[in-house]
Amino acid sequence: MRVVDARVCGSSDAPVTVRGWVRSVRRQKKWSFLSLSDGSCAETLQVVFPGRVDASVTTGSAVAVTGSLQQHMRLPEKELHCAEDSASAIELLGGADAETYPLQKKEHSFEFLRDVVHLRGRTATMGSALRVRHTLSGAVSASLDSQGCTQVHTPIITGSDCEGAGETFRVLPAAELRASSGGGGGGGGIAAEAADGSAAGGATGAGFFGTEAHLTVSGQLQAEAFAAALGRVYTFGPTFRAENSNTARHLAEFWMIEPELSFAGAAEAMDSAEAVVRAAVAAAEERNAGDLAVLDQAFGEAAARRSAAADPAPYARVSYSRVVEMLQEAHARGEAPAGKDGEAVDAVQWGDDLSSEQEKWICAQHADRPVFVTRFPRSLKPFYMLQADPLEDESGPVVEAFDLLVPGVGELAGGSAREHRLSNLIAAMETHGLIDAEGKAGPLEWYVDLRRYGSTPHAGYGIGFERLVQFVTGIKNIREAIPVPRAPGLCLM
Amino acid sequence: MRVVDARVCGSSDAPVTVRGWVRSVRRQKKWSFLSLSDGSCAETLQVVFPGRVDASVTTGSAVAVTGSLQQHMRLPEKELHCAEDSASAIELLGGADAETYPLQKKEHSFEFLRDVVHLRGRTATMGSALRVRHTLSGAVSASLDSQGCTQVHTPIITGSDCEGAGETFRVLPAAELRASSGGGGGGGGIAAEAADGSAAGGATGAGFFGTEAHLTVSGQLQAEAFAAALGRVYTFGPTFRAENSNTARHLAEFWMIEPELSFAGAAEAMDSAEAVVRAAVAAAEERNAGDLAVLDQAFGEAAARRSAAADPAPYARVSYSRVVEMLQEAHARGEAPAGKDGEAVDAVQWGDDLSSEQEKWICAQHADRPVFVTRFPRSLKPFYMLQADPLEDESGPVVEAFDLLVPGVGELAGGSAREHRLSNLIAAMETHGLIDAEGKAGPLEWYVDLRRYGSTPHAGYGIGFERLVQFVTGIKNIREAIPVPRAPGLCLM
Repeated sequence: MRVVDARVCGSSDAPVTVRGWVRSVRRQKKWSFLSLSDGSCAETLQVVFPGRVDASVTTGSAVAVTGSLQQHMRLPEKELHCAEDSASAIELLGGADAETYPLQKKEHSFEFLRDVVHLRGRTATMGSALRVRHTLSGAVSASLDSQGCTQVHTPIITGSDCEGAGETFRVLPAAELRASSGGGGGGGGIAAEAADGSAAGGATGAGFFGTEAHLTVSGQLQAEAFAAALGRVYTFGPTFRAENSNTARHLAEFWMIEPELSFAGAAEAMDSAEAVVRAAVAAAEERNAGDLAVLDQAFGEAAARRSAAADPAPYARVSYSRVVEMLQEAHARGEAPAGKDGEAVDAVQWGDDLSSEQEKWICAQHADRPVFVTRFPRSLKPFYMLQADPLEDESGPVVEAFDLLVPGVGELAGGSAREHRLSNLIAAMETHGLIDAEGKAGPLEWYVDLRRYGSTPHAGYGIGFERLVQFVTGIKNIREAIPVPRAPGLCLM
Repeated sequence: MRVVDARVCGSSDAPVTVRGWVRSVRRQKKWSFLSLSDGSCAETLQVVFPGRVDASVTTGSAVAVTGSLQQHMRLPEKELHCAEDSASAIELLGGADAETYPLQKKEHSFEFLRDVVHLRGRTATMGSALRVRHTLSGAVSASLDSQGCTQVHTPIITGSDCEGAGETFRVLPAAELRASSGGGGGGGGIAAEAADGSAAGGATGAGFFGTEAHLTVSGQLQAEAFAAALGRVYTFGPTFRAENSNTARHLAEFWMIEPELSFAGAAEAMDSAEAVVRAAVAAAEERNAGDLAVLDQAFGEAAARRSAAADPAPYARVSYSRVVEMLQEAHARGEAPAGKDGEAVDAVQWGDDLSSEQEKWICAQHADRPVFVTRFPRSLKPFYMLQADPLEDESGPVVEAFDLLVPGVGELAGGSAREHRLSNLIAAMETHGLIDAEGKAGPLEWYVDLRRYGSTPHAGYGIGFERLVQFVTGIKNIREAIPVPRAPGLCLM
């Protein structure tokens, strides 16, 4: 029987066996008490054992305990009572040497736990974080499914990473790289092809795929192709950035949710994103009450955020131009939040990017609830966003873009209507240097095709999944929001 | 209104607008007929337009059509009737030049469609395949969730690819590779680190992560770490093989479902895999009747397979040794299926691997239903599988492994109980050359830790997701079972 099931079934004298890991063991004169976790829920099962349990049963050991489930005398909890005459009630499945087992019964820092990433899921906080992450993943998919979106797995290895979203990783067959390094052990057909296909003489990966291959920085462009076939789609998969960012906000490998909606504008995309966030919060509250209690204890703050995000009033939508105005007013009052790199700023000018401090401040101005900021200057956004006619309070060209800002985290999602008009798209790509001398878009020619054949207004957005985990759980460092973090210098497991 | 909704609501004279793409257009003297798809379902909506629709409305165009929904006179279908006096009932959103649009109204070969992979989702067959894939993805997750498994996203970039599952891809920051090639444009801090960290002098990727980095070939080993924390888990993500296999059965990038169950043996893992396959088949039948009809028309066979797989009788479980016996008997009768590479074989000997022809033959011997083959020779399987005591009919050391074979596809899943005993695992790793001179497992030392601390019996398996798509849909070439295929020479989009 699993712990999660043991906790809901009635008291019973019929013997049951529960298997799990010992979180802690306390030996008294006449009784021993074990706190047993099997990872099925945040709660542990207290085992009451008559006498001193064997010394081999230590923190971290795996055991099978047989006893009867009894209601705890003073708490609304079950205990597993071993019979007085049963010496074999606790079977040791696998010990954990107390001298060397890294997770003893004490507080460990998250920094330390990152060094034992293969074991950290056994701690109360990380176990709860992983279970909530699972709930959020399912809730996001369920929400998008109910919105009529078909999930498409867009490719991880891509030949067209011209989006400019950041530094990329290159992908090469290991054999090809060995061959080009002049080292032994490589060679063979693949390497030979590489030598032919390589422009620079070294390994390029062009040998295997016939083109340079990168890890995707976003599935959006490919998702657009499938939105032009299936109407409404989303991709939910890993994305990669090779930037040397050693911060609490960045990972080299992270998961993105990227819906793309045909016959829709920015307003519908915002509706969709709001529905996803609400579904995620509601699912965690419903399925993971125990886990959220553990996480709230560890990190604080998130309970209030979740409650604010669940409030039925729609999330505010405020234009970038109005945000700049608000920041200028705050500056005049001497209350401006910090700019980039946490430094004090002169008054923000229209066209400036927003710092994460400013993003958090904007949420604070809106009752600490999620806020959409809309209609950004074109100069701040990528080539594919739909150009809009500027309104009166806008000082320059704007696009139909939006960012979803949330308290504690800052930017959780970003999206836009897409430029669906062929000539406008070509012009924007020319501005970004994506059109060659022959007027071709090279590896993005397929993307231009989407505007040549049956183009339609459409919009989409991306949610950083680890940021969503942080928002719901309160996790401070994004490295705790993913099972196995990847960052510069960090590639354990 | 979406097509899928239009088809279920009643006839109505109130005007509705449906947006989608024109699959075909037929102009008669007094009437024009459009077949309209919006990707929401397999079925199209027939549009009845009084007069000749404008010449710009061609196959592939995106249009918004306004009319009233009427029951078709002779079929149980809805039609969208444009009013007689409404010249603007069909709004062209985006044209598709009939001279150049690649998908005209005719049969296209799947080979041709792979060259226009960004458009092929608009064809009836590929659209249906994508919708069924979506259903299967959700059904697999729902089944595992109901089995108490927590989804963990195991890492894509890994430092410990010693499993021997095949050739790997290496991952390097593009800047590092540029710098090591002596080309311009690279350089900077990362490349400098690489030069320091590199053993061979060339780019190794060790600069960014501090270790050689590969794309994962399987999430299993990492999933085992989380199973030892959360009890029951699964990972569902992309995996990669750099083998130069240009076949209808192999991809360089494909998705795997890998559950891992603590306190379980091979029998429970087989129960779990069977439940997943049944859930997948049932969900497709329930949600995608129209899509399956399209696919059955295109590929045949799969309807019978699905029906056989759904039969409540448990899937047969037959030992490898018994299979060898059956093959030997068939050989004696002159009915032996082909061996590796499709060639005729001498009688199979105990210890030989099975060919995919033989795998299909085994299914045929079991009423063309899925069959588990169990207890394989240790020499055929990886180091981490649990060694079992040989039974009377077994001619050598066996492991508690199983393959799930299915008609039409062959091996759909493979799994085993894992070697959970420290000394046995070390011995197996020594045999596979995974233990160095100091007795350490190098990049897999963390994996050995799982047997040092709270080790328990556990088992798991992997399902090739594209193979599951093939099994349910009948798709012949695995390149049609994934939205954007990756294989040697194939990296479009």
